[in-house]
Amino acid sequence: MNYKLMLRTLGRTLQVEALCILVPLVVALGYREDPRPFLYTVVLTGALGTLLSRLKAKPDFFPREGFAVVGLIWLAMSLFGALPFWFSGEFASYTDCFFEVVSGFTTTGGSILTEVESLPHGILFWRSFASWIGGMGVLIFTLAFLPKVGGRTQVLVQAESPGPVASKLVPKTAMSSRILYCIYIVFTAAETIALRIAGMPWFDAITTTFATVCTGGLSVRNLSIASYNLPACEIIITVFMLLCSLNFAVFFLVITGRLRQALGSDELKFFLLAVVLAVVVVFGNILPLYDTAGHAFRDAWFQVASIVSTTGFATTDFALWPVLPQFVLLLLMFLGGCAGSTAGGIKASRVLLMFRCAHRSLRRLIHPRAVKVVKLDGKPVDEDTLNTAFVFFLCFMAVLGLGCLIVCLDGFSLTTSFTATLACLSNTGPGLESVGPMGNFSAFSHLSKWVLSLAMLIGRLEVFPILILLLPSTWRKD
Amino acid sequence: MNYKLMLRTLGRTLQVEALCILVPLVVALGYREDPRPFLYTVVLTGALGTLLSRLKAKPDFFPREGFAVVGLIWLAMSLFGALPFWFSGEFASYTDCFFEVVSGFTTTGGSILTEVESLPHGILFWRSFASWIGGMGVLIFTLAFLPKVGGRTQVLVQAESPGPVASKLVPKTAMSSRILYCIYIVFTAAETIALRIAGMPWFDAITTTFATVCTGGLSVRNLSIASYNLPACEIIITVFMLLCSLNFAVFFLVITGRLRQALGSDELKFFLLAVVLAVVVVFGNILPLYDTAGHAFRDAWFQVASIVSTTGFATTDFALWPVLPQFVLLLLMFLGGCAGSTAGGIKASRVLLMFRCAHRSLRRLIHPRAVKVVKLDGKPVDEDTLNTAFVFFLCFMAVLGLGCLIVCLDGFSLTTSFTATLACLSNTGPGLESVGPMGNFSAFSHLSKWVLSLAMLIGRLEVFPILILLLPSTWRKD
Repeated sequence: MNYKLMLRTLGRTLQVEALCILVPLVVALGYREDPRPFLYTVVLTGALGTLLSRLKAKPDFFPREGFAVVGLIWLAMSLFGALPFWFSGEFASYTDCFFEVVSGFTTTGGSILTEVESLPHGILFWRSFASWIGGMGVLIFTLAFLPKVGGRTQVLVQAESPGPVASKLVPKTAMSSRILYCIYIVFTAAETIALRIAGMPWFDAITTTFATVCTGGLSVRNLSIASYNLPACEIIITVFMLLCSLNFAVFFLVITGRLRQALGSDELKFFLLAVVLAVVVVFGNILPLYDTAGHAFRDAWFQVASIVSTTGFATTDFALWPVLPQFVLLLLMFLGGCAGSTAGGIKASRVLLMFRCAHRSLRRLIHPRAVKVVKLDGKPVDEDTLNTAFVFFLCFMAVLGLGCLIVCLDGFSLTTSFTATLACLSNTGPGLESVGPMGNFSAFSHLSKWVLSLAMLIGRLEVFPILILLLPSTWRKD
Repeated sequence: MNYKLMLRTLGRTLQVEALCILVPLVVALGYREDPRPFLYTVVLTGALGTLLSRLKAKPDFFPREGFAVVGLIWLAMSLFGALPFWFSGEFASYTDCFFEVVSGFTTTGGSILTEVESLPHGILFWRSFASWIGGMGVLIFTLAFLPKVGGRTQVLVQAESPGPVASKLVPKTAMSSRILYCIYIVFTAAETIALRIAGMPWFDAITTTFATVCTGGLSVRNLSIASYNLPACEIIITVFMLLCSLNFAVFFLVITGRLRQALGSDELKFFLLAVVLAVVVVFGNILPLYDTAGHAFRDAWFQVASIVSTTGFATTDFALWPVLPQFVLLLLMFLGGCAGSTAGGIKASRVLLMFRCAHRSLRRLIHPRAVKVVKLDGKPVDEDTLNTAFVFFLCFMAVLGLGCLIVCLDGFSLTTSFTATLACLSNTGPGLESVGPMGNFSAFSHLSKWVLSLAMLIGRLEVFPILILLLPSTWRKD
C-alpha cells in the first residue's frame, strides 16, 4: 500500500472540502447568523488537509489503493463535514451530526432531526449543499482540482462511477467529468429558476434544487415538499427527479444531436417502463383516497419519481397508503435509477442485465445447444460484467440483511427496521412506518445510526469499495 | 413437444397417486369413518390415469418435455390430491383444498384450517401422507414404478433434484433413487418408534414423523408440537428435522464407511455454522422471556431447526418474540437446508457458492491478475454452475416480489403479506404476524391462495421448471 500517496490525496480532498464550507459560511454571514461553526471547521479541515497534501509520495497507484482511498475519502469528508453541525450545538450528539452529513454526502436524505424549520439558514444550507456536492461524487468533483496521479485516475472513476458498465462519454476522464459537471450545473440553475418562478422563496428554491438534482431529498421544511402546497413546484420537482435518475450520457447524446441513439437505450426504455407501470399501480390503488383523480395522479407521479430516483421527497405521507402501493415503492427502492446518474439503488441496467441473463439460462435449459450472448443496446456484454452484476446484487442483499439484523436490536417493528436499512443502503431516505416520509431516524440507537451511516456509504459507493476495505488481503503486504 | 408421451407419463403418475390414496382409505376404514371421499378419488384418478397411460407415444424425450412434464405432474397430482378434502365437505372451497394439498405435496406445511383436531383421522392422515410422498419428490418416487423413458429419465431427475450440483450417489439414477428412498424409510421408522416411546400416541407419532422427515410441518394439533408438552419428543423432532435438512448423500457416505469425506463437506460445515450462529443469537435474545435457560435453549434449537429445515413446526409462538430473533428466522427461510435434502429455500450450497464467487470478484478488483476458480469440496466449480446459482437467486427474489405484490392486494400488513409469500416460496409454512406459527392462511382471498399455491410449487421445483412452462419458446414448434 502506498499510504503516503493515499494520505496526500486525502489531504487534497480535505482542502477542497474546506473551500466548500466557505459557501455556507457566507450564507450564515448573509443571514447575520453565528459563523463560528463553519469558521472552526474550515480552519481545522483546511489545516489538516494542507499538512497531508505536503507529503511526498511516489506516484504508484494500483487498484487496491484506488478503492481504499475512495472509501477513506468519503469517510474523512463525512467526519469533518459533520463538524459544523457539531459546533452549532443544534444536534444531540456527534453521532447525529455524522448521520446527517453522511445522509447529505451520500444523497440519501434521511434525517435524525425532528424539527428543521427552526435551524439557522447556514446549517440548513450546508445540509443541502453537502448533498449537492455528494451528488456527482466527491471524486469526480475533485478530479478537476487534483493533479493527475500518474495517469491512474481512471481507477478512481471506476471505483466510484455508478453502474455496471463504465461507458465513457469522451476518451479523456477529466473531460468526461467536466461534461457531467456542466450538465449538473445547468440542471441546478434551470430548476432553481423554475421553482422561484413557480412561487418558492429563493432560499427554499436553491436548497430544494440542491436536494433534487443530487437525488438527495433533504428538505428545509418539516413536511417536505407537502408544506409548500404549490402544484407547479411539485411538477417541476417530479420532472427534475426523473431527469436526474437517467444516465447522464443520455443528455450528452441529446446535446450532440444523437437523439435517436439516446432514445434507443435499452436501460432507458426498461427504466421508463418500470416507472410508468409503478405509477399505474399506485394511482389505481390510491385513487379512492382522493377527491380528484388529478390530485391522485400528481401524488402518484411525485412519490414514484421520488422513490425510484432515490430522492425521498414527499408530497403526502405514503406510509399511510394501502399496503400494495407501499410495496411498489419498496420495490422501486431496490431498483433505483439508471447507471451513470446521481440515483442509488441496484440500478436499472444491472437489473435488466440480470433478467436477460436469467432468460438466457432458462432458454439454455430447454435448448441446450442455443448458446447465446446477453446483449445491451445491441452490443454483447461479456460474462465478467454479468457476473459482477450478480455479485453486486448478492452483496447488496447481504449488506441489507446484516445491517437490518443490527438495526433490529433496537426493537422497532420489522417493517421499520427493514425499510430503514433499505432506505439508507439504496440512498433513498424515507422508509415506512416510523421512518416514513413524515417520520425520521432520531429514535434509533447510536449503534444503529453508525450502521445506517455505513449502509449509506456502502450503497453510495456501489458496495465494492467499502467491502474491499474489509478484506484482509487488501491490507496485506505484497 | 411430444404431448402424447407427456400425457402417458402423467397417466402413470395418476395411477400411482390413486394407489397412494388407498392408504388413507384404509385408515378411514380402520377408524370407522366415511371412506367415500377417498373411494371416489381413487376411482376418478385411477380411471383417468389408466386411460392416459394407454396412449401410444414415441419415446423421444427432450429437456423441454422433461421440465414441462415435471411441472404438469405436480399440478395434476395436486388437482386430484385435493379431491378427498373436497369430497369430505370439511373445507370451505376447492381453492382451500388445493392450497392444503399443495402445501402437503410441496412439504410447505402452511394450512388454511383454523381448527384441525376435529377433522376425521383419514383426512388428517392424507394431509401428512401427501407431504411424506412429496418429500422425496413425486418423481423420484415414481421413477421406481415408471418404465424407463428411453434412458432419458436423467432429464427428469435434473429438473427435480434440489440443489445446484446434481451429484449422483451411484452411476444409475434408479439405483440412486432407491438408496435415497431407503434412507428416507429408515428415518421414518426410527422417528416413529422414538416418538411413540417418548409418549406420543401412535397416530400422532406417525403423522408427525411424516411431517418431519419430509420437512413439511403439517401437524394434527392446533398448537403444533407445543400441544404435546413432551420435551423428549421436541428433542427427537429437532434432531430429525436437522438430519432431513442435510444432503442425503452425506448419509450414503456414512453408511459406506466414508465418514471423513462426509464430514469434510463444505456445505455441511457452512450449514451447521449458520445453524449454530442462529441458535446463539436467538437464544441470547429470548432468554429474558423464559424462567429457565434450559427451556429457552430447547425452544431456540427447535425453532431454528424447524425454520432452517423449512419444516415449520413450532413449540412456541415465535411471532411474539422480539424482532431480532424473528428476523434471524426470516433469514433462515431464505437459506433453507442443504442441496439434496427434502428442505426448501435457496439451499446452503448455492448461498456458499455465491459468497465464494463474491469473494473472488472482490479479490479480482484489487488483484486483477489473480484469476481464480471457485471451489467446492476442493473441486473447481464451472462458471455455468455459478451463473445458474445466481440466476436461481434472482428468480427466487423476483418470484417473491411478484407474489407478494399480488398478496398485498388483500390489504394485510406488509410483514404478513411478505412472510406469507416467503414462507410458501421457501416451503417453510408459517411466517410472522397473522401467518405466524399459531396463525394460518385462511383469511387470504382466493386469488392469494392460488398465487401462494403457485409459489409453493415454484419453490419446491427449484423455480426453473415452472418458469420454463411460462416461456413462449417452450411451447413453440421446432
